[in-house]
Amino acid sequence: MTLHPFDQAIALSTEGEDLRRGHTSAHYWNAISPFGGTTVATLLQAILTDPRRLGDPLALTVNFAGPLQKGDFMLRVHPVRTGRSTQHWQIEIRQGDDQEPAVTGSAVFAVRRDAWSDTESRMPQADAPERLDRYASPANVPFLSMYDVRYADCNPLAGGKDSATQCWISDVPPRPLDFPSIAAQCDTFIPRLFVRKGGPTAISTVTLTINFHVDSAGLQRVEGHHTFAQAKANAFNGGYYDQEGKLWSRNGQLLATTHQMVWYRDQAL
Amino acid sequence: MTLHPFDQAIALSTEGEDLRRGHTSAHYWNAISPFGGTTVATLLQAILTDPRRLGDPLALTVNFAGPLQKGDFMLRVHPVRTGRSTQHWQIEIRQGDDQEPAVTGSAVFAVRRDAWSDTESRMPQADAPERLDRYASPANVPFLSMYDVRYADCNPLAGGKDSATQCWISDVPPRPLDFPSIAAQCDTFIPRLFVRKGGPTAISTVTLTINFHVDSAGLQRVEGHHTFAQAKANAFNGGYYDQEGKLWSRNGQLLATTHQMVWYRDQAL
Repeated sequence: MTLHPFDQAIALSTEGEDLRRGHTSAHYWNAISPFGGTTVATLLQAILTDPRRLGDPLALTVNFAGPLQKGDFMLRVHPVRTGRSTQHWQIEIRQGDDQEPAVTGSAVFAVRRDAWSDTESRMPQADAPERLDRYASPANVPFLSMYDVRYADCNPLAGGKDSATQCWISDVPPRPLDFPSIAAQCDTFIPRLFVRKGGPTAISTVTLTINFHVDSAGLQRVEGHHTFAQAKANAFNGGYYDQEGKLWSRNGQLLATTHQMVWYRDQAL
Repeated sequence: MTLHPFDQAIALSTEGEDLRRGHTSAHYWNAISPFGGTTVATLLQAILTDPRRLGDPLALTVNFAGPLQKGDFMLRVHPVRTGRSTQHWQIEIRQGDDQEPAVTGSAVFAVRRDAWSDTESRMPQADAPERLDRYASPANVPFLSMYDVRYADCNPLAGGKDSATQCWISDVPPRPLDFPSIAAQCDTFIPRLFVRKGGPTAISTVTLTINFHVDSAGLQRVEGHHTFAQAKANAFNGGYYDQEGKLWSRNGQLLATTHQMVWYRDQAL
């Protein structure tokens, strides 16, 4: 069996108790650096595959501190503190002889248990993905071809006063949803500034947080390989804007909510 | 001049290039540990007062990994990487001879500049705080008396199907808004599970992220000492729920958006 390109992209080899080696992916390359979602997924994968792991992902924060180059990178993964039901991790990526990390982050893993539960953020009504057209992005960067995105409401580059969009997302080729793929999909949204300006500008994610609302047992009940995603910005201010997103499974399970801060220039490319 | 109790609570002394000493505050004590908002504000204050600092807070993530006891604590603050307009920090708190940190976190600071700007999340209409009653919490923990909270829409403990609330918040006694006080206010919201259940249960914030939407220059244009705050949960699932919040200044500037994951038990206290 051939690995899905996503599984190749997030694969790691063990180089020491806290050390892993990874390699950037040509499939998930962005304009001048790796697609950030793959980096986020790789950090999560390092914990998911660690023998010291307790439970499932609850929250993940990734800070993009410097550029990642094509090639090998070293990932340090360290369990900072383990409690009865939660575990705190620190993670970072360095490349070559760099003294400073390119990426830093933290994660909380947790064991869920029987407790009163309720989801307030319900999946909106939308046409099935089979009834919608795949979005053909005008951008020509490799990672975009690894996602099938179908907008439920609009042309995302029509421009306007509101950055909110909603769409179906699927890996290409289709791949069962798991924590790494959900994490990566949290960074696939078309940049909110492009939505407002009706076209591309220079942007770069500075920091991203994902809160997970499902555990491994819940993932087993997910139907299909699509997620339904909403995203919007709260504010664009002085070269930095935010992006909020929500992802549901096709059968309406809230999988994750995510928030990022993005550096931007306002001149069209 | 006597320092405001909040400024006393977040005060730090320098013990080394990366080391600061702080002390928990009796005024901002919660039931069995310090009010988390003060801890968040203290971490931010460590960076704000660091001579190596570049720019203003853009994002802050704080992970509550273990209990903090009454008394002194040591805070380690380290600039991980400094770029042209952003700076990445790591921060942690340890106490006594503990080998493991009680609190870990990361922050991004940034220099904003002239660029096209727009706020999509506008402050809702609400009665002025002077026309509303101060909320008298049934809980008897010290830090609650340090905040004047006035609900604009409801009794937050009425119970119901929706955890959303909105309220005015002010420090007691009134204190000009700054980054530490905004950060602390991001953790003052009545727990969303209390709102749903109509009363207290055991809860504990596991991790919290704040995205800041204003810089120092923008803070100078803020009027009054109140913030208007909205908060809601997206999902309660298996012992962990999330809380999202937004804070505006009285004259409608979006100051911060915040998200946290909270451990809970569902039995009433």
